[in-house]
Amino acid sequence: MAERIARRGRAARRESRAAKPVMTAPYITRTLPTIEILGEEGLALIEGNADTLLQEIGIEFRDDGEVLDRWRGVGADVQDQRVRFPKGLLRQLIATAPARFTQHARNPTRNVLIGGDSTVFAPVYGSPFVRDMEGGRRYGTIEDFCNFVKLAYQSPYIHHSGGTVCEPVDLPVNKRHLDMVYSHLKLSDKPFMGSVTAPERAQDSVDMAKLVFGSEFVDNNVVMVNLINANSPMMFDGTMLGALKVYARHHQACIVSPFILSGAMSPVTVAGTLTQLLAEAMAGIALTQVIRPGAPVIFGTFVSSISMQSGAPTFGTPESNLLLLGAAQLARRLNLPYRSGGSLCASKLTDAQAAYESAATLQTTMNSGANFVLHGAGWLEGGLCSSYEKFVMDCDQLGMMGVYANGVDLSDNGQAMDAIREVGPGGHYLGCDHTQSNFEQAFYRSGIADNNSVEQWEDDGGLDATARANTLWKEMLARYQPPTLDPGIDDALNDFIAKRKAAIPDAAY
Amino acid sequence: MAERIARRGRAARRESRAAKPVMTAPYITRTLPTIEILGEEGLALIEGNADTLLQEIGIEFRDDGEVLDRWRGVGADVQDQRVRFPKGLLRQLIATAPARFTQHARNPTRNVLIGGDSTVFAPVYGSPFVRDMEGGRRYGTIEDFCNFVKLAYQSPYIHHSGGTVCEPVDLPVNKRHLDMVYSHLKLSDKPFMGSVTAPERAQDSVDMAKLVFGSEFVDNNVVMVNLINANSPMMFDGTMLGALKVYARHHQACIVSPFILSGAMSPVTVAGTLTQLLAEAMAGIALTQVIRPGAPVIFGTFVSSISMQSGAPTFGTPESNLLLLGAAQLARRLNLPYRSGGSLCASKLTDAQAAYESAATLQTTMNSGANFVLHGAGWLEGGLCSSYEKFVMDCDQLGMMGVYANGVDLSDNGQAMDAIREVGPGGHYLGCDHTQSNFEQAFYRSGIADNNSVEQWEDDGGLDATARANTLWKEMLARYQPPTLDPGIDDALNDFIAKRKAAIPDAAY
Repeated sequence: MAERIARRGRAARRESRAAKPVMTAPYITRTLPTIEILGEEGLALIEGNADTLLQEIGIEFRDDGEVLDRWRGVGADVQDQRVRFPKGLLRQLIATAPARFTQHARNPTRNVLIGGDSTVFAPVYGSPFVRDMEGGRRYGTIEDFCNFVKLAYQSPYIHHSGGTVCEPVDLPVNKRHLDMVYSHLKLSDKPFMGSVTAPERAQDSVDMAKLVFGSEFVDNNVVMVNLINANSPMMFDGTMLGALKVYARHHQACIVSPFILSGAMSPVTVAGTLTQLLAEAMAGIALTQVIRPGAPVIFGTFVSSISMQSGAPTFGTPESNLLLLGAAQLARRLNLPYRSGGSLCASKLTDAQAAYESAATLQTTMNSGANFVLHGAGWLEGGLCSSYEKFVMDCDQLGMMGVYANGVDLSDNGQAMDAIREVGPGGHYLGCDHTQSNFEQAFYRSGIADNNSVEQWEDDGGLDATARANTLWKEMLARYQPPTLDPGIDDALNDFIAKRKAAIPDAAY
Repeated sequence: MAERIARRGRAARRESRAAKPVMTAPYITRTLPTIEILGEEGLALIEGNADTLLQEIGIEFRDDGEVLDRWRGVGADVQDQRVRFPKGLLRQLIATAPARFTQHARNPTRNVLIGGDSTVFAPVYGSPFVRDMEGGRRYGTIEDFCNFVKLAYQSPYIHHSGGTVCEPVDLPVNKRHLDMVYSHLKLSDKPFMGSVTAPERAQDSVDMAKLVFGSEFVDNNVVMVNLINANSPMMFDGTMLGALKVYARHHQACIVSPFILSGAMSPVTVAGTLTQLLAEAMAGIALTQVIRPGAPVIFGTFVSSISMQSGAPTFGTPESNLLLLGAAQLARRLNLPYRSGGSLCASKLTDAQAAYESAATLQTTMNSGANFVLHGAGWLEGGLCSSYEKFVMDCDQLGMMGVYANGVDLSDNGQAMDAIREVGPGGHYLGCDHTQSNFEQAFYRSGIADNNSVEQWEDDGGLDATARANTLWKEMLARYQPPTLDPGIDDALNDFIAKRKAAIPDAAY
C-alpha cells in the first residue's frame, strides 16, 4: 500500500478518477434511523387539520366527469368540480395501496424495491434547458436527453433511468414522448418513468412497455413509475388526472406529488403547508385506489419555499428541509412509499451555492427515509436546467449516501481490536494488516473531490470541481456501451413509434 | 407585499443582501431530535472495547512526571509513560464533570450555554494560510486575524469569537498569543478561546482574562474554552498536557479532542475508530477531573478519513459523518458536552467541492446534537487555509441551521388554517392576511444565495457565490464598529502585553 500511496502522478490520479466504479446494489437498503421532527401530538394535529380541510374546503378535480362520478360513487360530496370528503373516507380507501412494491427493469438485476427501508435514486426530471461548462445554457435536445440516459446508465449510484431527464425541445411536443420512452428502453436497462403530459401519451408509454415486458406482465407488475403533480393549492388538473387514470388502471405506479412552493401555493408555515400537502396527497392517492384497488402508488412531495423579497423559489432552505422530514413522517403513517428530495438548488451555475443547497437537500432526504428520490442528480436553476457537470457531481454524492445508509459495521473486522493492539500508542495504521486487508473497500472513493495538497492540485492544473466534472462526464460518454436489446423487441418498438408518429397530427408542435 | 416583490432592481437586491441581520439569540437551543446510528448493543460493544483498550494497551502521557504521579495516585498502572486503567476507573473520575456550563463573554448578553440542547458555533481554528478571491493564498497575518475576529463579531450566526482564526505568521511564534487574545477581547465581545501552544501561553491567557473578568470570577467561572488535542493514536504530548493542567486548575474548560484521520491514526473502520476515540477522550477528560474535580470539560472529536489512493485527509465523507454521529452518542452517554463538526472540506477553492463537503459535515453536525462546533465558518483546504469568502458563505449556512434546529411551530399561527380557508383551491397565498402578517419572519433570508431568474442574475453580472461572498465580507469589514471596552481594562491589557513581550526572549521566533 505504501507503493500505492506513493503513486501520485497526474496520470494515475486521472486514471483513478476515470475508473468505472463497480455496481454494488440495484438500490439502497437503509439501516439508519429516520429523523422524526414531529411527535405524536404534532402528527395528530396536522392529520386532524387535513381531515378538516378535506371535509370543509375539499379538493377541486378539473375532470371531464368520470373522476367526479367515481367520487360520488364512494360517498364523497361533489359540487361542480369541488369534492369534499367525510372524515375517514380517504384513509379507508388508501388502505388498499401496497406499502412497498417492486418496479421491474428489463434487466431483472436492476429491479428496484420501492418502499420500506429501500431508497431508489433517479435523475433530474423536466428541465427545458441544459448546461455544460463549454456550451453554456441552451434548450435541451434529444441528443442531450440520450446523453443523460447514458450517464445514468453508467453511474453505479443512480438506480433508475428516470423520465424527462431534459425536455427534447427539438422534437414535436406531441410526439417526443415516444422518443423519450424508446431512449430509456434502448440506451439503458434500468427502470424508467412513463409520460404524463396527456392521457394518450401515458397509454403510448404503457403500450411500449408491453412490447418489452409482455402485456399480461405489465397488467400485474409495475414497470413504470409516473409523476402526477397536484396543482396546489387543492386542485388536480385534467391532464394529470387523465394520466393517473391510465396508469392506475394498468397497475402502473403513480407518484402523487403536491407541487408546492410554500408562501405562494401554501401557507408560509411548515405546519400549514404539511396540512395542505397531506390533504392533496391523500385525495390523489385515494383516487388511484378508487380506479383500481391495490394499484401501487407513492406519496409524493415536491415542496420548497420562496424568497419573500422576490417571490422566487428557493431550495436547500431550513424550511424546505423541515417540510421534507415532516411529510416523510405523514407518508409513513399512511404506510405508503415516500418520494421527495434530491439534489435541489436555485443556483444558475455549479458553484458553491448549488452544492450547499443540493447537499442540504440530499442529506435531509436520506435522513427522512425517502424511498424514491427524483432529481437525484443534474438539477440546476430551480429545475429549469439539467447540467452535465452537476449530474456527475451529484452522482458522486449519491454514492456517498449509499455508504452512509449502510451504517456502522459491528463485526469483528469492524471492531478492529487486533489493529489497535498491533499499532499501539504513537504508531500509525497505514501499513498494519487490518488496513491492508480492508484497503479496497475501506472508504468511499470520490470521482470528483480533489483531496491532494495545494501543490499537487496546482500541478494538476488547479482545476475546480466543475472542470473535473467536465472531464468525467465526457470520459463516461466516450466509454458508453449500450446494453443488449432483443432485435425483435427493438423492431416492434420502432414499428409502434412509426405508426404512432404517422397517426399523431403535426399541428400541435 | 406585491410592491415589495416587484422591487427587483439591482440596487434593491444588493441593499437587501448587505442589510445587517438581527442577532436573535446568543446560541441555538435545539428542539430537534438527534440521529442515533448506534443502538444499545453497538454502544455497549464499543464502550466495552474501549475499556479493554484502556486496560490492556493504555495511553501514553509524554509528561514531565506530574501527570504520571497523579495517575498513580488514583490507582492507574503506570509503566514509564504508559498508563493503563482498571475498568471503571475513568468513568468514575469523569462523573464529577458538569453536563453543561455557561461560558461567560465580556458582554453578558453573549454568554453561551455549552451542553444539553444548546449548540454554539465558533469560527475556523489554526490555519497558517488565508485566501481571498483577489489576493489568492498567502500566509496569515495579524491583520487577517483581526479581520476574521471582526467578521465573527458581526455575524449574527456565529456565537463565539473562536481562537486561532488564522495563524498571524508575521508575529513571533512565542508572543503572538498575546496579540491574539487581545484582539478577541478588544475587537469583539463574544466568548473566546485561550492559547494552548505552551503552558506559559495558557497562563498568559488566564492572566489576561482576569484583567477583564476579575481574578475571583475567572477561578470559578468559565471565560475560555481551550482546544486540547490528543496525539492519536493513544498519546497526549507534553505541550497539550501542560496547557490542560493550567486551564483545568483555573476552572477553564478544556475541549479534549482526539485528532484522528481514520486509516492513518486509527483503524479504517468506524467502530474501531470510535473505540480508540472514546478511550483517548475518556483518558484526557478524566485527567481534567483528577487535576480539579468539577472542572468543565468538553468531549471533543476531530475525526475524518483519508484517501486510500493518496493518504490525503478527506472531509464530508460518509465515513466521517458516521464517526461524528457515533461519537456524539458516546459523549451523551458520559453526560458530557460534545464538540465536533463544522464546515469541513478538502477543497482548495470555494467551489462546489468545498460546499458539498462542508454542507454534509454541517448537516450531520446539527443532527448529531453537537454542543460546541469549532470550524463553523471559513475552513478550506483541510484546515490549512482560512478563507474570507468561505467565512461568510458558511455563516449563511449556520444561520439556516438555527432555523432548522427550531423545528416546527405548531401554534395556531403555525397551523395557518385561516389562511387555507381564505385562499381555497386554485388560489394563491402571496397576498393573504396570514402571509402579510408573517412576512418578515416567514423564511430564512440568505445573504449569499441568488434565487432570481437566470435573466435577472445575468443582469446582476452573472456572479457565482464566491463573487457575491467577496462583496459581502468587504461590506461587513467596511461597516465594522468595535464594541466598547473600558479604557482602564484596555490599558491594563496593553501594560500586561508590553511586560510579557519584554520578558519573553526574541530568539524563539
